[in-house]
Amino acid sequence: MMKNVLVTIPVNEGHKKRINEIARDCHVEYVPASELSEEKVAAANVIIGNVPAQMIQASQNLEFYQLESAGADPYIVPGVLAKTTVLCNSTGAYNRAVAEHAVALTLMLMKKLYLYRDAQKNCQWTDQGGVSSPVGATVLVMGLGEIGMHYAAILKGMGACVIGVKRRPSACPACIDELVTTDAVDSVLPRADVIFSILPNTKGTVGFYTEERFRLMKPSALFVNCGRGNAVESEVLLKALRSGQIAAAACDVTDPEPLPADSPLWQQENLVITPHISGGFHLPYTFECIVDIACENLSHWIQGEEYRNVVDFETGYKK
Amino acid sequence: MMKNVLVTIPVNEGHKKRINEIARDCHVEYVPASELSEEKVAAANVIIGNVPAQMIQASQNLEFYQLESAGADPYIVPGVLAKTTVLCNSTGAYNRAVAEHAVALTLMLMKKLYLYRDAQKNCQWTDQGGVSSPVGATVLVMGLGEIGMHYAAILKGMGACVIGVKRRPSACPACIDELVTTDAVDSVLPRADVIFSILPNTKGTVGFYTEERFRLMKPSALFVNCGRGNAVESEVLLKALRSGQIAAAACDVTDPEPLPADSPLWQQENLVITPHISGGFHLPYTFECIVDIACENLSHWIQGEEYRNVVDFETGYKK
Repeated sequence: MMKNVLVTIPVNEGHKKRINEIARDCHVEYVPASELSEEKVAAANVIIGNVPAQMIQASQNLEFYQLESAGADPYIVPGVLAKTTVLCNSTGAYNRAVAEHAVALTLMLMKKLYLYRDAQKNCQWTDQGGVSSPVGATVLVMGLGEIGMHYAAILKGMGACVIGVKRRPSACPACIDELVTTDAVDSVLPRADVIFSILPNTKGTVGFYTEERFRLMKPSALFVNCGRGNAVESEVLLKALRSGQIAAAACDVTDPEPLPADSPLWQQENLVITPHISGGFHLPYTFECIVDIACENLSHWIQGEEYRNVVDFETGYKK
Repeated sequence: MMKNVLVTIPVNEGHKKRINEIARDCHVEYVPASELSEEKVAAANVIIGNVPAQMIQASQNLEFYQLESAGADPYIVPGVLAKTTVLCNSTGAYNRAVAEHAVALTLMLMKKLYLYRDAQKNCQWTDQGGVSSPVGATVLVMGLGEIGMHYAAILKGMGACVIGVKRRPSACPACIDELVTTDAVDSVLPRADVIFSILPNTKGTVGFYTEERFRLMKPSALFVNCGRGNAVESEVLLKALRSGQIAAAACDVTDPEPLPADSPLWQQENLVITPHISGGFHLPYTFECIVDIACENLSHWIQGEEYRNVVDFETGYKK
């Protein structure tokens, strides 16, 4: 019997041609996630794209499931997927978009562009005083996955001295000047001019940035979070920003998300908030990467080869 | 008779020690520009720092005048300086600060951070849609002085393809992918994703960005001006931004300056304004460079050697 491939990501004609070519012996359907029926999901042997977890109902037909996202949290919950389903994510596709967004936020803080935008709204031609530079700045990259490495390479290229922080010791990559393990982070926090957090969502990272850790930072430090919002409690962050423990922060992730309209974080002048958009499909390149990963894995499924980006159900991340 | 050296820039004790050492046979006085008297200016054989042009009154005593600024406009007006006075500027000191500010503005536009800041003020967790990347972007650098070159090197390092535009043909520098002369600019404007203008203030650059030239640009183009405000008339810029001839702009310079509170530019959503602060002493490194240039030239004055950064009275810029 012909196998069913269900594609819910917004592919164009060129992408469809590639997918159809790879899955030429299958029945391929393109249905936007918003127009899915439970029947279609239940009949699918392969799904490409994020569908609501409850629609999958541990379907025994689903052999290979390719997520469009890097995160897999809703799908690793026991009972969502059958034990025979191979789950792959799109880790890697978002590296450029997230790293560049983080660099843009870092420079926005360094050059006080958020204060100038605020002043502009009030028609004020007002000097906001001193700025800082990446040249000679000590930049701490918390989490040395591919996004952290990409960010590090750009900042180092602009003249920064980069300290990388990761769980396990390893050789120091070329884009990092100094490598320390997470258990030694408190010894390097006091040296950092910029702290870029790209920590994943694990038991060990929830509430990682405690009051004590903010107290270790320089009063001039800039904190940029594009990892997970729960790495820092909103109240702890607010206190650090209000008390001058750090100079400013920029967060693409918050706790909770979306950030409620009555959260005091919104109106904190020295905090820049973007609504978890550094990933997404905002950069055309990101979507091309997702299609590349999906096509590669679709081919592996057909050929019975090893998949790329298989999700570890223990951690929710790539094995 | 002992010569008089008057220093009006806000030097620290370390700087004073350096200057005193070089000018050990002179009478050195440190007076903030705001506390100057005409007597002190008239008695000075050397001045380091920008003093009001009318205070100089073509003083015959003034042998060497070191400006803290890169621009020299008020001082090249006939009758301000005696013909025997050598005028030097601080060209070079501002390269890093201005180039980095321009990079920060460029990324702010690419990643729509100005829209996110506006949404934040309204407590809105709202996706602002597609963004762009320096990777593969065609970046036009209008004016290839040291600031333009520095900006080009950073953007190229981030993956951009840089087209440099300068008045006279020359060999193509390493940080530039393609070099064209100003008279050919209209042929490359249609290709640019980013136009960075760092044109000096000369007869040929006033109103350089005409309606016709904005019409040649892509509707997705981003325009960044850190050169001189008069390179584009406010009305022409506003029309380009409102009609969708270009996508967005960021200007550290405006016409006139300061921008009047009732200017419609302030409230133009897709325009970011900073109040001519990319230079100034906002980056500590800038001031260190100014002191370096001043010390070097002070030494040249004492030794009777050739000066660095001598101003050409025809152009107002470094010879």
